[in-house]
Amino acid sequence: MPTEFSITRRVQFAETDMAGIVHFANYFRMMEEVEHAFFRSIGLSVSMQHDGMHIGWPRVSAACEYFGPIRFEDDVQLNLRVTKVGEKSFNYEVEFLWEGRRVALGKMTSVCCEMLETGMRSIPIPPGIRKKLENGKDS
Amino acid sequence: MPTEFSITRRVQFAETDMAGIVHFANYFRMMEEVEHAFFRSIGLSVSMQHDGMHIGWPRVSAACEYFGPIRFEDDVQLNLRVTKVGEKSFNYEVEFLWEGRRVALGKMTSVCCEMLETGMRSIPIPPGIRKKLENGKDS
Amino acid sequence: MPTEFSITRRVQFAETDMAGIVHFANYFRMMEEVEHAFFRSIGLSVSMQHDGMHIGWPRVSAACEYFGPIRFEDDVQLNLRVTKVGEKSFNYEVEFLWEGRRVALGKMTSVCCEMLETGMRSIPIPPGIRKKLENGKDS
Amino acid sequence: MPTEFSITRRVQFAETDMAGIVHFANYFRMMEEVEHAFFRSIGLSVSMQHDGMHIGWPRVSAACEYFGPIRFEDDVQLNLRVTKVGEKSFNYEVEFLWEGRRVALGKMTSVCCEMLETGMRSIPIPPGIRKKLENGKDS
Repeated sequence: MPTEFSITRRVQFAETDMAGIVHFANYFRMMEEVEHAFFRSIGLSVSMQHDGMHIGWPRVSAACEYFGPIRFEDDVQLNLRVTKVGEKSFNYEVEFLWEGRRVALGKMTSVCCEMLETGMRSIPIPPGIRKKLENGKDS
Repeated sequence: MPTEFSITRRVQFAETDMAGIVHFANYFRMMEEVEHAFFRSIGLSVSMQHDGMHIGWPRVSAACEYFGPIRFEDDVQLNLRVTKVGEKSFNYEVEFLWEGRRVALGKMTSVCCEMLETGMRSIPIPPGIRKKLENGKDS
Repeated sequence: MPTEFSITRRVQFAETDMAGIVHFANYFRMMEEVEHAFFRSIGLSVSMQHDGMHIGWPRVSAACEYFGPIRFEDDVQLNLRVTKVGEKSFNYEVEFLWEGRRVALGKMTSVCCEMLETGMRSIPIPPGIRKKLENGKDS
Repeated sequence: MPTEFSITRRVQFAETDMAGIVHFANYFRMMEEVEHAFFRSIGLSVSMQHDGMHIGWPRVSAACEYFGPIRFEDDVQLNLRVTKVGEKSFNYEVEFLWEGRRVALGKMTSVCCEMLETGMRSIPIPPGIRKKLENGKDS
């Protein structure tokens, strides 16, 4: 069974634009918010020490399809579903629901990296982290 | 020959995050900036009156691939290329170049809409606007 | 007794900058978030119909003092205190607390306006709205 | 004569909100943009190595008064004026002009800090940097 995780998130005024709806770029911030809440729920952080390394998760791709607008003070349900835990990368989808309707669908791919003073270096996802991502729980 | 349009854009401090690089969601704002500069260059605006209608261009999809980071005060070249002018929709790509290297590639699809008090309604792209988008000039 | 209202708000990754802390401009968004939550708590919205008018609250001044940094995943308590309900304007302070320490103090002045097609026009705060702002409850 | 520095900056779509005007928090980003452009104009950066230290300029206070709205595609002139170079701190004002009218006035105080792994520490502004801030030129 795929790992799933949800939060509900109220749209803030500063997230709207002059068209009266949430600016399309802000959906990517919401995707990141549910991702980070998911990480916390399984005892991880996207910026953490692990086995003496500083681990980070830079994105290699991000995409979103928009089916209908969302507006100020709307309560949006964000359903994250882990779609793949690869050797070094991690894929998930975020379904945006408003009043029961799917208003957007986002997809993200991040790669596990050791963050060094001199830059970042992709590494195989450490087994302890992989297990949590796959199981969707802090175990 | 495809329509192309470029700007160079300096990365601002507020666009970075604690990883020391531009936050991935801000690439979508940069894509929009070059798009709007392109519209202006052909005598259009993304929010304009045309034949008595208020025309807008909500996004139906947005995507970006990231090949390498960009940082504070980097001068990034944004090359927009129109890839399709459909009946009602408009597609373009944005290549992000930094020091001659392609650091990201974005893709966007917008749909031509009449913006009404009660919402928005997709419409065929008016011929006068279509011609400018296809030719990439104000003619 | 002055009207007070509080929320706790987790710092998101996109709110940080390359200095590793929350970017100073984002404190103003947090001030707005607690303000809007306060409005909802008393049965109002910052963008609402009232007596056939569309009422809005543009800012006339905003200020913040910073005493110490806040960081990704910090839980920040935002304490709003109404400091004045004038004839047409509304003043409040927001105290930012992190782990019991005051890390910032914001001040905001907004003016009650009728939002018209042609612009906005300041108006005396309608009595029904004034009462709720002064009492800090939906009564 | 006080040090002054100006840029002109076009308002972007993502900077507007559902009221159809630039969101008040974005004025602080604009203040930072002209500040950083000023630093570059005198051969400095707000994030730089100097005498073996990493120097940064966290804000201790920021304020803005709003006299009238600015909108999408407006060209706004930002006039920075250095008002004080103290022992450890640096004050400036930014006047926002649109079509010759003053639409906002911002004020900022930053403090010179050595940025360390363990945090930041305020230090006297190094003489070489002070001279440039006072003279407003790279000398």
